[in-house]
Amino acid sequence: MTTTPTDGDLRCRADRARQVADALRFQILHGELRDAPFPSEADIVADFAVSRNTVREALALLNADGLLRRVPGVGTTPVEAKYPHSIDHLQGLAETLVGHGAVVNEVRVAQLVPTPEAIAARLRIVPGDPVLYLERRRLVDGVPLSLDLTYVVADLGERLLDADLTGNDVFALLEEFSGERLQKADLVMEAVAADRHSAATLGVAPGSPLLMLERLAHLGGRPVDLEFIRFRGDRVTMRGSVVRPTGEVVG
Amino acid sequence: MTTTPTDGDLRCRADRARQVADALRFQILHGELRDAPFPSEADIVADFAVSRNTVREALALLNADGLLRRVPGVGTTPVEAKYPHSIDHLQGLAETLVGHGAVVNEVRVAQLVPTPEAIAARLRIVPGDPVLYLERRRLVDGVPLSLDLTYVVADLGERLLDADLTGNDVFALLEEFSGERLQKADLVMEAVAADRHSAATLGVAPGSPLLMLERLAHLGGRPVDLEFIRFRGDRVTMRGSVVRPTGEVVG
Repeated sequence: MTTTPTDGDLRCRADRARQVADALRFQILHGELRDAPFPSEADIVADFAVSRNTVREALALLNADGLLRRVPGVGTTPVEAKYPHSIDHLQGLAETLVGHGAVVNEVRVAQLVPTPEAIAARLRIVPGDPVLYLERRRLVDGVPLSLDLTYVVADLGERLLDADLTGNDVFALLEEFSGERLQKADLVMEAVAADRHSAATLGVAPGSPLLMLERLAHLGGRPVDLEFIRFRGDRVTMRGSVVRPTGEVVG
Repeated sequence: MTTTPTDGDLRCRADRARQVADALRFQILHGELRDAPFPSEADIVADFAVSRNTVREALALLNADGLLRRVPGVGTTPVEAKYPHSIDHLQGLAETLVGHGAVVNEVRVAQLVPTPEAIAARLRIVPGDPVLYLERRRLVDGVPLSLDLTYVVADLGERLLDADLTGNDVFALLEEFSGERLQKADLVMEAVAADRHSAATLGVAPGSPLLMLERLAHLGGRPVDLEFIRFRGDRVTMRGSVVRPTGEVVG
């Protein structure tokens, strides 16, 4: 590993390249580089006080993550293919992406099944009683964004069987059927590698990073909708705010 | 690809294996399988009405994700190596992991640097004015959990240079110095693949899924701490609740 210490910085070049890449990465994700020409290598060298080789390595990292497009003769431009998904507000995908693109849901399965024990407790269903199982691949502007496995309590789920699931968010339909607004959802999020089959379904290479989300949505005081969602890591960011719990400043 | 249609379900076996794996996955992550023997293949066959080969494929998926340990002669046990990180409350790592494990911070860099333009706007610093740059590898019970690149405004950052950064969260130190409680942070989260060098630093294979977090924390009404954090995907989950924005039920 090449080490070029500068100014007491004993890290290797890869460390410094990561530092440069991260700052640029979030400028791209925040859209800050949208309306200006992308900084030249010389600009970045000056801004971070690093070598040109370090800058090239940083740009290669962003390129590998699909955040830059390098067009010969034109130069480097940031790719803004990531959609913001809220972790503050519960929203269906079509609602989330208003103004970003058209959502189409490819329905792969929609049927009532006996509730597996592994699912029953979270939806407060007696194991073996019916639940709607729904499997959808969701595309935005024709490109796969996510693969969603959804369980919906039977009284509401039965009505989904007759609805237009291709063109509507399940959330919107549940609210239409019940006449009530959803209340909240509990989330668990992970970064996982795409298994071979999920990768093929989502149009990415096996092992690609996916944002995996478990979401349990509540309506009328009960859990009604349990989802397991695989988002393509190269197409989605999760955004929101967290507040500091009140408490003593520990000295 | 082998297709074994059952009961109008025209998906291939890999689809059904994913469905089974996802339900078990979140039972493991929620700790629901902690105190009972892990379900046998026969149990899972019965629970999901799938073939034994499908169940084996599902278990192989969980195994590949590091969620199961299969000990010959003993059987299968779930691995609970993932730490819950809150997306509702702003907390430092040591606070988050109270009761889970001991956090050690390996400080790789801690120095004042001229603020790069790519960073300045977010922290409301004049480009070129000093900012503290801090790079830490964070280990829980001796195993790498994350690699954190942090920029702290100079008035608070200077004091961090004399503090015990190995044993303390930066958040706790900032509150000690200022006598004020942090207020909130803005988050952007992504799933990314580990580049070769980050992978080596975190002790995972190149390309492993990482949860990448940008976090901008506020104190006394101004942004003071900007972090770029790579969490190992196999060790961290993000958890919290989202509420439904009030509004009309769209019919």
